[in-house]
Amino acid sequence: MAQQATGKRIVVRYERGAVRRIEDDVATEWPVTILLNGEEFATLVCSPGDVEDLAIGYMASEGVLADIAALEDISYDDRTGTVYADVRGVDSWMKESGSKRVLTSCCGKSRQGFVFYADMRTAREVASRDIGLTYESCLRMMNAMESNSGLFKATGGVHNAALFHADGTLLLARTDIGRHNAIDKLYGYCLRNGVPMSDKVLAFSGRVSSEVLLKAAKMRCEALLSKSAATDLAIGLAEDLGITIVGFIRGGAMNVYSHPERMKEGE
Amino acid sequence: MAQQATGKRIVVRYERGAVRRIEDDVATEWPVTILLNGEEFATLVCSPGDVEDLAIGYMASEGVLADIAALEDISYDDRTGTVYADVRGVDSWMKESGSKRVLTSCCGKSRQGFVFYADMRTAREVASRDIGLTYESCLRMMNAMESNSGLFKATGGVHNAALFHADGTLLLARTDIGRHNAIDKLYGYCLRNGVPMSDKVLAFSGRVSSEVLLKAAKMRCEALLSKSAATDLAIGLAEDLGITIVGFIRGGAMNVYSHPERMKEGE
Repeated sequence: MAQQATGKRIVVRYERGAVRRIEDDVATEWPVTILLNGEEFATLVCSPGDVEDLAIGYMASEGVLADIAALEDISYDDRTGTVYADVRGVDSWMKESGSKRVLTSCCGKSRQGFVFYADMRTAREVASRDIGLTYESCLRMMNAMESNSGLFKATGGVHNAALFHADGTLLLARTDIGRHNAIDKLYGYCLRNGVPMSDKVLAFSGRVSSEVLLKAAKMRCEALLSKSAATDLAIGLAEDLGITIVGFIRGGAMNVYSHPERMKEGE
Repeated sequence: MAQQATGKRIVVRYERGAVRRIEDDVATEWPVTILLNGEEFATLVCSPGDVEDLAIGYMASEGVLADIAALEDISYDDRTGTVYADVRGVDSWMKESGSKRVLTSCCGKSRQGFVFYADMRTAREVASRDIGLTYESCLRMMNAMESNSGLFKATGGVHNAALFHADGTLLLARTDIGRHNAIDKLYGYCLRNGVPMSDKVLAFSGRVSSEVLLKAAKMRCEALLSKSAATDLAIGLAEDLGITIVGFIRGGAMNVYSHPERMKEGE
């Protein structure tokens, strides 16, 4: 299988009544299986590149890698698309509970939006500080994320995620065909390299669902920016967890869905 | 929790330097857990509505409901978001193998793109017939799907799927915040009501990934239309399974990614 982020395909192009054959760049999907302590844990279909970061971010997000110090070894076989991860202290309950639904009744205000057990364990309220976020810096960050994404320009149909300092300085950007993979690649990189995320802003090209919001919470980001809308559940969780969601950032305008007190006037 | 497809939220709107509070429609996320023969099978986060169809389509797509006649009973408790499904002949291997990766070496041309065992069992090559698909009918179908979607207009950030006769007549449309749910709701409706899908066209608002392509193959649709791009893996699978992918349908233009021989000239 190909391991480039894009491949070439001959497609039939129709435009204003005319039909011709052209060569087009298309995004590659690459299946990666994580073997956690020797057992099949998950298969992610992703864009090639930064695969170990993806596995680390995914395991942290699913709650089986609560502390990066518990990661004893990680390696990637790019011929078979297999990540071998050895993590201390993973019991079978943790591995299985991640996808289990919280079907119990509500247990307090800040828990009512949680759907999965793993999220209740790993997503906590973020600190509320003046990180200097402004409407103008939000516009700058969204522009910077998009102009940074070469894969998106070439193929369409991929998701971008980027981490910024609150003043709008870009720290790290990732692109992936999988909706959440770009975020997990950022998360894994930061965990692996000891980069603090707690005063950072996470920008994302897709819709802010509860799942995306919870990833931001697990990373401890204070603000989450998106070109798209946020869902009702994501907004409720963001209110409880202390995260500012700024969505629909397009055409110089935006909606602040939660914790607008973080937004400062002026430049 | 709310069970309407949209909710109202007060958001802070920034536009041309001015900030004001407005009421905004936001899409609802509603978690639904499928109990298959009494055991937790999956939790889907979806838009409310057509939940039993969603569960049927999802189980069929995952391979645990190979034949609708095996569905002995299905009911939905909308207070807890639980679907109770009794299906004959589901063994534990079938339930577990769906998410298992095909890590064996390639076993023939038409299987090389398969990632998951369940897909190898359920996706077969579709018949190749002259269903009368034209470039003009593709444009009409994409327009019809979009103008049919009220939820999308209200909130942004949801996915549309629709089934059409090849001449462009709309059969059925669904909208959902979950990327694949709208397709599964169509699939479940057709299975439940005995609607043949084998000569139909599936239109989708999102990117054509391998997963979306495989859903079309399981439904036996001959063509898959999208506003977005297709991935390399989806194109390869479509070539092997006999499906025409028409993507990037926007601004009166489109790309035919696979099996362009189905496209007829003229109106």
